[in-house]
Amino acid sequence: MTTATTASIATPVAITPEALLGTWQGHRRLTRKVIETFPDDKLFTYSLGGMRPFSELALEMIYMAGPGVEGAATGKWVGFDTLGHHSPESPKPATKAALLAYWDEITEIIDYTWTQFPAGRFQEIDKFFNAYDCPVYAGILYLIDNEIHHRAQGYVYLRSLGIEPPAFWDRY
Amino acid sequence: MTTATTASIATPVAITPEALLGTWQGHRRLTRKVIETFPDDKLFTYSLGGMRPFSELALEMIYMAGPGVEGAATGKWVGFDTLGHHSPESPKPATKAALLAYWDEITEIIDYTWTQFPAGRFQEIDKFFNAYDCPVYAGILYLIDNEIHHRAQGYVYLRSLGIEPPAFWDRY
Repeated sequence: MTTATTASIATPVAITPEALLGTWQGHRRLTRKVIETFPDDKLFTYSLGGMRPFSELALEMIYMAGPGVEGAATGKWVGFDTLGHHSPESPKPATKAALLAYWDEITEIIDYTWTQFPAGRFQEIDKFFNAYDCPVYAGILYLIDNEIHHRAQGYVYLRSLGIEPPAFWDRY
Repeated sequence: MTTATTASIATPVAITPEALLGTWQGHRRLTRKVIETFPDDKLFTYSLGGMRPFSELALEMIYMAGPGVEGAATGKWVGFDTLGHHSPESPKPATKAALLAYWDEITEIIDYTWTQFPAGRFQEIDKFFNAYDCPVYAGILYLIDNEIHHRAQGYVYLRSLGIEPPAFWDRY
């Protein structure tokens, strides 16, 4: 009887945890290609409209993704006092190769941490970065959406430099 | 026994259909604000790097969202032969007010169509726009992600015009 009840109130699913991870890592593969597409100097210097160069945008993605996924899985929010600010423990990458290496570290952290989410965790409410109350799925979506948003800024930088960016659908 | 089996293999959920709709409509409210923020003429004329003006990007979102959500719910892909091309039946909006009115029509279509998704539909594979094989959830995510991507292009247009865009988190 209890089992029947459990089955009848099963939460409807649009996106599974596995699919959400696949979506995010697909986007991160594309963002990595955008980093690679920038000329080495322009990556750290070029911008439009008074905005940040793409290296700074990629670093924001890194700083949010690492502690973001760890906090989302564990409920422990540590490592960065303020969203998007640089951790004093890790030196800021000064070359494209160093930035890509940092990117790849976060890729592994995300993959590993994804195996640590307790069942039902994505529907729980938590205070992301000790600041924003939202369901865990919404916090993760915010990280992904923020990456898409800032990556697109990089697309405009590249186009205005006369450089063809990777195709938007290229997540491989 | 059958019931117990059903319960034990319940699909794990990261995002429910209701939450996915809320995410999308939240993004669409923000995109609507970006349309409103453009000066009337610049909406249809201004661009950077040889790309399309924001009115054309908003129209692409509209043309994809309407038939996209209807096809996703029903499996019937009609109305547009080619992704992103304009339907000959509907005249192209030539003013900001007309574009916003078209936008709001699509908002209602999405809300209504969302009630028509059969249970389990989001995990099925379909050929989006008669062209791309993918799970239904992934096709919907593509529509949302494409909107975030092109909207961010609009953010750069606005910044380069010296205009402050709406905050990225403002989905209300």
